Amino acid sequence: MTVREQMTRPVAAFDLTRQLAAEALGTALLLAVVIGSGVMGEQLSGGNVAIALLGNTLSTGAALVVLITIFGPISGAHFNPVVSLAFALRREIPVQTAFAFIFAQILGAVAGVYAAHAMFGQDILQISTKLRAGPSLVFSEAVATFGLIATIFGCVRFKPDFTPVGVGLYITSAYWFTASTAFANPAVTLARSLSNTFAGIAPSSIPGFIAAQAFGALVGVVVFGWLLNGDAPKTVSVPE
Amino acid sequence: MTVREQMTRPVAAFDLTRQLAAEALGTALLLAVVIGSGVMGEQLSGGNVAIALLGNTLSTGAALVVLITIFGPISGAHFNPVVSLAFALRREIPVQTAFAFIFAQILGAVAGVYAAHAMFGQDILQISTKLRAGPSLVFSEAVATFGLIATIFGCVRFKPDFTPVGVGLYITSAYWFTASTAFANPAVTLARSLSNTFAGIAPSSIPGFIAAQAFGALVGVVVFGWLLNGDAPKTVSVPE
Amino acid sequence: MTVREQMTRPVAAFDLTRQLAAEALGTALLLAVVIGSGVMGEQLSGGNVAIALLGNTLSTGAALVVLITIFGPISGAHFNPVVSLAFALRREIPVQTAFAFIFAQILGAVAGVYAAHAMFGQDILQISTKLRAGPSLVFSEAVATFGLIATIFGCVRFKPDFTPVGVGLYITSAYWFTASTAFANPAVTLARSLSNTFAGIAPSSIPGFIAAQAFGALVGVVVFGWLLNGDAPKTVSVPE
Amino acid sequence: MTVREQMTRPVAAFDLTRQLAAEALGTALLLAVVIGSGVMGEQLSGGNVAIALLGNTLSTGAALVVLITIFGPISGAHFNPVVSLAFALRREIPVQTAFAFIFAQILGAVAGVYAAHAMFGQDILQISTKLRAGPSLVFSEAVATFGLIATIFGCVRFKPDFTPVGVGLYITSAYWFTASTAFANPAVTLARSLSNTFAGIAPSSIPGFIAAQAFGALVGVVVFGWLLNGDAPKTVSVPE
Repeated sequence: MTVREQMTRPVAAFDLTRQLAAEALGTALLLAVVIGSGVMGEQLSGGNVAIALLGNTLSTGAALVVLITIFGPISGAHFNPVVSLAFALRREIPVQTAFAFIFAQILGAVAGVYAAHAMFGQDILQISTKLRAGPSLVFSEAVATFGLIATIFGCVRFKPDFTPVGVGLYITSAYWFTASTAFANPAVTLARSLSNTFAGIAPSSIPGFIAAQAFGALVGVVVFGWLLNGDAPKTVSVPE
Repeated sequence: MTVREQMTRPVAAFDLTRQLAAEALGTALLLAVVIGSGVMGEQLSGGNVAIALLGNTLSTGAALVVLITIFGPISGAHFNPVVSLAFALRREIPVQTAFAFIFAQILGAVAGVYAAHAMFGQDILQISTKLRAGPSLVFSEAVATFGLIATIFGCVRFKPDFTPVGVGLYITSAYWFTASTAFANPAVTLARSLSNTFAGIAPSSIPGFIAAQAFGALVGVVVFGWLLNGDAPKTVSVPE
Repeated sequence: MTVREQMTRPVAAFDLTRQLAAEALGTALLLAVVIGSGVMGEQLSGGNVAIALLGNTLSTGAALVVLITIFGPISGAHFNPVVSLAFALRREIPVQTAFAFIFAQILGAVAGVYAAHAMFGQDILQISTKLRAGPSLVFSEAVATFGLIATIFGCVRFKPDFTPVGVGLYITSAYWFTASTAFANPAVTLARSLSNTFAGIAPSSIPGFIAAQAFGALVGVVVFGWLLNGDAPKTVSVPE
Repeated sequence: MTVREQMTRPVAAFDLTRQLAAEALGTALLLAVVIGSGVMGEQLSGGNVAIALLGNTLSTGAALVVLITIFGPISGAHFNPVVSLAFALRREIPVQTAFAFIFAQILGAVAGVYAAHAMFGQDILQISTKLRAGPSLVFSEAVATFGLIATIFGCVRFKPDFTPVGVGLYITSAYWFTASTAFANPAVTLARSLSNTFAGIAPSSIPGFIAAQAFGALVGVVVFGWLLNGDAPKTVSVPE
């Protein structure tokens, strides 16, 4: 198996149980970070939303680097249904594995939201009332997810060892350059509807977000499927 | 072809169409980041410009690392006319390629600005009214572009694999240490005149900025052409 | 000795005296950073606690990367009793070494707090009056320490050279996503009770914190002992 | 010549003229960053000094990584008289080279301050009136410089390729955990007395700062000369 295959598909040596555990636990920790740091930022920033978002961004970006580093070699560290589907579409993982991953991701995401609520002494069960609607936000989600797919496929193609840092930096950037703060992930979107805090999203805003994410991911798969398909050597990183 | 050549000139295996697509798409995403995160910062920071600039900086620096990592092996990831011209001046890419790149960069940059406006629900077509004039700002642009050329040529010479991180960190720094917030890029300068937001620049301020950028880049090419021209081994990074 | 062994146990070539000096000096510098940057943040942030925490976070995360890089090859750079005990539990260091390390860590931690007080012109001897009590904070500490163990064991397993950066990024994130700001370290907890500043903790809150840290670490050892135990090659990082 | 020697002494292949140019130009850019980003922070932060210091820190830390990466292979990228003297003390560079470097560093530092003033449209010639006196600040400088020497010698010993990042992260941390904001550099101290801005220091405060820096550096050389002197293999980084 080549290096690229090791990075893009679950390493065969880890059985499906461990792969699903990695997807569930990784997504749970990701959501605990997203929700928890949002609450922390909101509580401490004295009403200055930009300062709250700085803390939220720093915490999420840093956590992504770590989580993809430690879970990536087990399951690929997708933590994201559109990423699992994109790899299935490219025939790099079986479709049934993708669906099992998605199930684990959603379970994990919900558990992570509840863990964040418990850490901050809030009611465990909540429903967000924060509307995130309108064409600008929907377009933002399509752009955000297109960029995420570009980042993942580009890193995997040219510098696979850098993928955890690349994704962490991309989300750090996307929290600020998209009007929607870059959910870019249907499992995250669903779970964030269960938190009426800084990072929440009202259930009525979910369909538009998920449709846009699917569309942006699809465009990303097509565009980068073409763009990266040269005859260049697999990596140009420096042989050390 | 040596490693250094792979990094400084477009990898031959990617045809010119893909190279131009990489330059256009990469510059578009860069401008979407610069404009988008500027709007986000301005909207959320409650009038504290330093906080807005922190978000703008974080988002731009992080995105540059990612964009240069994923587009660099295709086109060199210049995203910047003076960088393309500097490589042409050093005879590392043909002059006609440089001009084709510049055309793609400008088209992409304008598209990126419009995408940012769409994401934030603003009028697509705008003209900036933010004057950025006077000798201090012009001198700032010369210094900023000199430093950018130093960063690129220094990294390519000694540690090419680090170039994406080096450029991202340099711009992170330069947003703060120059009075002009380091445009350092004629395509970016032109495109930012089409956005009447945080990161905009009035059209009347463009000529001074671009002249200074060209001058700073030229001094950088001359000074680092001499300084880096020792007989040292091509890289001193640790053989691991 | 394999690479993994070099990272997880003290390198044999450094005698126990130097190992203990590394643990004491490293923990001292860590506490000087935690307390010092907390005081700096509190003094300069004009009452906005989120801004103070941003400075505290940036300083602590950056210092951890450096300290683990320069002391790791000598002693393993645990700086943390539950980390030393976790390695003893996995039989990677002798139990008596773990206890000697813990002794050095506590001495160093106290010295670091006093150094921070001296740097900021405060009374050297203080006792914190900042209560950090209640089930949410205790649960936060369990999650924070579980995540720290996950980070260390995951990095050591798959990408040992990245461990210093991984731990620095994890703590950067955990300062924000846990309600307790992630002490995650009994020696740090004890020492921070000796500072009545931003980063302090009242002595009465210590037992709950340390019990939670021990519990979280133990769960981490069990879960990741199972999860990482596939038959995968020791590392999937790219052979370059 | 071994890798370690390449990193710690000027690479022989670059002649002394280029080495001195690298020290002067690198120190000039460093000071332009320190002073410039301080002015930017002060102007934009609306009186919140912590926010100004965040921008100043981000800009300085990021620039150090870049500057040491691009000038390190030419001259060692000391930019700091106590670092040059420490290497001379360890007989890794000749004493007369150290003094030539110090001369270049001071010239460069002054030029960098003037460049920053020009970029921000200020009077070129200034004298700081910002008193930084008292035993706490002097002790802070000793700690800051001890830590800088620890960082440099530790990275050079165990992971030389990481030295630019290590130093950048250390200064990022030290701006916050020391009461003096970690000048840790006599050339920087002298030059900052020539700027009556955020980063300035009154001339009367110079002697205490420089004495403390020399003392801290000397303790660092002695302590780490002993601590790092095991029989361990030169590096434990992962062979990739």
